[in-house]
Amino acid sequence: MVDKFLFLEDLSVGQRFSSGSHAVSAEAIKAFAREFDPQPFHLDEASASQTFFAGLAASGWYTAAITMRLNVDGGLPLAGGIVGAGGELSWPAPLRAGDVVRVESEVLDTKPSHSRPDRAIVTVESRTLNQRGEPVQILRAKLVVFRRHVG
Amino acid sequence: MVDKFLFLEDLSVGQRFSSGSHAVSAEAIKAFAREFDPQPFHLDEASASQTFFAGLAASGWYTAAITMRLNVDGGLPLAGGIVGAGGELSWPAPLRAGDVVRVESEVLDTKPSHSRPDRAIVTVESRTLNQRGEPVQILRAKLVVFRRHVG
Repeated sequence: MVDKFLFLEDLSVGQRFSSGSHAVSAEAIKAFAREFDPQPFHLDEASASQTFFAGLAASGWYTAAITMRLNVDGGLPLAGGIVGAGGELSWPAPLRAGDVVRVESEVLDTKPSHSRPDRAIVTVESRTLNQRGEPVQILRAKLVVFRRHVG
Repeated sequence: MVDKFLFLEDLSVGQRFSSGSHAVSAEAIKAFAREFDPQPFHLDEASASQTFFAGLAASGWYTAAITMRLNVDGGLPLAGGIVGAGGELSWPAPLRAGDVVRVESEVLDTKPSHSRPDRAIVTVESRTLNQRGEPVQILRAKLVVFRRHVG
């Protein structure tokens, strides 16, 4: 899927990337929740139906984890890997069992480091979309990206 | 650990909460990475030693997931559960195998909803600290918090 990995010199503002897709199962939503986010709306359909979410919904952190996996598996082919310093995220709609998600990413900004000339902080917006094209997560990540040639 | 769950009326800016603690193992770091973030610096000590992280480091999303679990397990006792709309997060230092983490949270802001009088958006900063008190994650989460009495 990925034919080359990109260095800082290969990136420009507005550049876009697309991941593969991933089908989300009820069992996977519940398994993640049992380990990391054991709340009724993430664990069980019947309990979830009585809550804010009106039905089983994935933990936002599961949505984030799936997004990362799709980006690591070729959605965001950065040389040196995807190294995050942080970012902003929102979950505009719940991720549901049966959804099929993919990630569309865009380079928003690049800020070369003055103290470390071999790298920059690159802001990438990754929109995680369901099968109807609705965003279930929007992440603006600050990533450490390396230069091909150290000056 | 938690003797009561808090509604919007029980919260005020500056209020603080503390979670229990969690010991992080190399095996758990690698298991999470195999599923969600399979990059060398999260998977294997030898490979990780040659990377940016100079040794095995947890995925930031694993740090986020552990933080959520500590908050769900009594670190942030909100009535109706911990329902996030999004937030800002940063990973100031890597989480390492052998670290023991806990979460210190503080209410930063509450914004009642005009359209939905039964709820508010409450900003909570959760600092995930290692055994030396160093933050490995700082999360400013926007949470949906419910009123005890609907007006």
